[in-house]
Amino acid sequence: MDFPWDDLALTFSHTSMFPFFDFAHYLVSVMAVKSQPGAVALAWKNPISSWFTAMLHCFGGGILSCLLLAEPPLKFLANNTNILLASSIWYITFFCPHDLVSQGYSHLPVQLLASGMKEVTRTWKIVGGVTHANSYYKNGLIVMIAIGWARGAGGAIVTNFERLVKGDWKPEGDEWLKMSYPSKVTLLGSIIFTFQHTQHLAISRHNLMFLYTIFIVAIKITMMTTQTSMTFAPFEDTLCRILFGWQQQLSSSEKKSEAKSPSSGTGSLASKPSDVASDNVKKKHTKKNE
Amino acid sequence: MDFPWDDLALTFSHTSMFPFFDFAHYLVSVMAVKSQPGAVALAWKNPISSWFTAMLHCFGGGILSCLLLAEPPLKFLANNTNILLASSIWYITFFCPHDLVSQGYSHLPVQLLASGMKEVTRTWKIVGGVTHANSYYKNGLIVMIAIGWARGAGGAIVTNFERLVKGDWKPEGDEWLKMSYPSKVTLLGSIIFTFQHTQHLAISRHNLMFLYTIFIVAIKITMMTTQTSMTFAPFEDTLCRILFGWQQQLSSSEKKSEAKSPSSGTGSLASKPSDVASDNVKKKHTKKNE
Amino acid sequence: MDFPWDDLALTFSHTSMFPFFDFAHYLVSVMAVKSQPGAVALAWKNPISSWFTAMLHCFGGGILSCLLLAEPPLKFLANNTNILLASSIWYITFFCPHDLVSQGYSHLPVQLLASGMKEVTRTWKIVGGVTHANSYYKNGLIVMIAIGWARGAGGAIVTNFERLVKGDWKPEGDEWLKMSYPSKVTLLGSIIFTFQHTQHLAISRHNLMFLYTIFIVAIKITMMTTQTSMTFAPFEDTLCRILFGWQQQLSSSEKKSEAKSPSSGTGSLASKPSDVASDNVKKKHTKKNE
Repeated sequence: MDFPWDDLALTFSHTSMFPFFDFAHYLVSVMAVKSQPGAVALAWKNPISSWFTAMLHCFGGGILSCLLLAEPPLKFLANNTNILLASSIWYITFFCPHDLVSQGYSHLPVQLLASGMKEVTRTWKIVGGVTHANSYYKNGLIVMIAIGWARGAGGAIVTNFERLVKGDWKPEGDEWLKMSYPSKVTLLGSIIFTFQHTQHLAISRHNLMFLYTIFIVAIKITMMTTQTSMTFAPFEDTLCRILFGWQQQLSSSEKKSEAKSPSSGTGSLASKPSDVASDNVKKKHTKKNE
Repeated sequence: MDFPWDDLALTFSHTSMFPFFDFAHYLVSVMAVKSQPGAVALAWKNPISSWFTAMLHCFGGGILSCLLLAEPPLKFLANNTNILLASSIWYITFFCPHDLVSQGYSHLPVQLLASGMKEVTRTWKIVGGVTHANSYYKNGLIVMIAIGWARGAGGAIVTNFERLVKGDWKPEGDEWLKMSYPSKVTLLGSIIFTFQHTQHLAISRHNLMFLYTIFIVAIKITMMTTQTSMTFAPFEDTLCRILFGWQQQLSSSEKKSEAKSPSSGTGSLASKPSDVASDNVKKKHTKKNE
Repeated sequence: MDFPWDDLALTFSHTSMFPFFDFAHYLVSVMAVKSQPGAVALAWKNPISSWFTAMLHCFGGGILSCLLLAEPPLKFLANNTNILLASSIWYITFFCPHDLVSQGYSHLPVQLLASGMKEVTRTWKIVGGVTHANSYYKNGLIVMIAIGWARGAGGAIVTNFERLVKGDWKPEGDEWLKMSYPSKVTLLGSIIFTFQHTQHLAISRHNLMFLYTIFIVAIKITMMTTQTSMTFAPFEDTLCRILFGWQQQLSSSEKKSEAKSPSSGTGSLASKPSDVASDNVKKKHTKKNE
């Protein structure tokens, strides 16, 4: 019997995010703003701009999901209590005498606790986004995944866009396209919770929330303590092999039989520029050499 | 009696876009994505980004018109069938072994058929946009034109914006401003259908749809077979002459009488920079020399 | 007894903006467009693009506030009368023979009158924005301030964004962040009217509108006649001193006592880059030297 486990998960899933977990989320977000070069000087020169950036970091996911569902992006400003909490954290972080907050935050255990609690809010946001999207589009599986993802990880997109507009950041083609680890884990969570919500996964929601939260908190803490970056590379590799691999295998087996012919003429679209083709070929070679 | 003609037009205007015409539209859009440099390599490296770009190309007009009317831009994702169709086309176009789809598409008759069918969907989109906008704003002539235009040709704006954000594209002042041929013909169609809808044009809608579709399909096919680009230059010239020409004629006739005076002092605003003025003058000279 | 004053203020607050004040606002906005380098040449080459820019300048604040409240940004196009008025002004300003409008506008009294009347519309816009936001969010003080601000001064943001997209303008980090004088005075007005609306200020609305309008018109006309730029520097300085000053005083008093120790170790976050720290220190020195 796993009644205690079930009870624990149920109690956990009813935890309120408001005072403590939200506090941790805002703290981690504001510290991320502060660690950007020039942020402190900017806060002295133009407090309103700095405050606005901090709010975008704290509420970015919510703003993006509001935009995608055509709800007022200012909705987050109407929640006076949360705004007040986030603003207070911004204020004491940037203007506290002797920089006490930053000094306290520089200890690893504090960072671990805050980051772990921030990851917990991610689960709540994904679940909230999926449920909210379902109230709009009953059968919109993709919409549910997208909104859960946007609310859980959309802050990065919003803040990148802000930096783009400010001219602080130039995308270099690749940067925009690479998904970071939080994006990937949030996408995974969004897919799982959407399938749970549409009854395709035979597991109760509180159990799933509990398991997913433990999973992301554990990975986050491992990443922070060992200073490594977690990748989904093996998992992604397998998925790519399943989805797109059969063509490569066909191509490569065919190439062996064609190896004597000087130029491979398979599937080269007339209008395809040569650099792409060579890139593609190089990649296939790399894969073959593995 | 032209009953057969009327019947034909009526039947035509009741054609459903869904399986075949939408297929052609998605095919042409995805092939446009694939012909961009680097698109194939990107699809292997980051399938989600490539898929997203392809969806923007397929549904861009709808997304723009949703944004302009404050409807959820994710609405298009809720249409599971169309998303599935577009995604399948993206999948087989990019990952089909031996690049069969591209090879098939490289034949001119296939391209002609697909492009012609894509133009048919343009008519349906313009009519849909105009009707939809009318349900919001009863007398909003300009809104109706704008929404019809956005839905019919807005994909170009959305995808340009995507390239801008990704850093693939730098506007050079002029590029942004020049309207392409599809933009112009869609604007024309949007104006016509709006006036038809507000009863300012004494023609039934199905006849107008039939005529306009024949018109744009014929031009498109002519352009593709003769490799020329259609321009509205004479028409635009006449319109400009009507709207703005009287000033030029006044100016130029006046200039002749003033020709002996060394500097022409007409209408030079104090704050107007000299390069503009000279540009303007040069242009007037060019026109005079025609 | 100040009945005449009260009557005057009440009558003033019932003035309709429509024909004359809106005309002045559109005229000032369109003249601002025309004074940009290249605007006249562009209007000849691509009238639609020029018209679009002019409309953004005329209706920018309304568009931004619509975006923030998830209302259709095209709503302004549905107001046929105002669009027609603004378009006519755009037309005669750019295409009037002999540039009569620009010549007339180049006289200082005309500019003073138009600018003064434009400032009057600012008050009406702020009040409209605050009232409108209040109908959405009953207790959303910050939302009310933000919408009042967006409607009164948001045009600058919208047009900057347009120039950014067109590639005409590169923000240089600082430019984006510095608030211009109109932004500041609009923010101040938005805060005042919000507090008036929530009964935190014991003054009737028509009196406040009258006083605020006189204030901004007087400052605007003073600025234009004396060619100086008004700053809120003393006021801002006091506010900064109240909000953030105590830390500086603590830091500086402490620094004096620490002056003999070679390196000051207070509050240097490990991850803070050195240029920021030195910038900060320099600033403190400057303040101390004042």
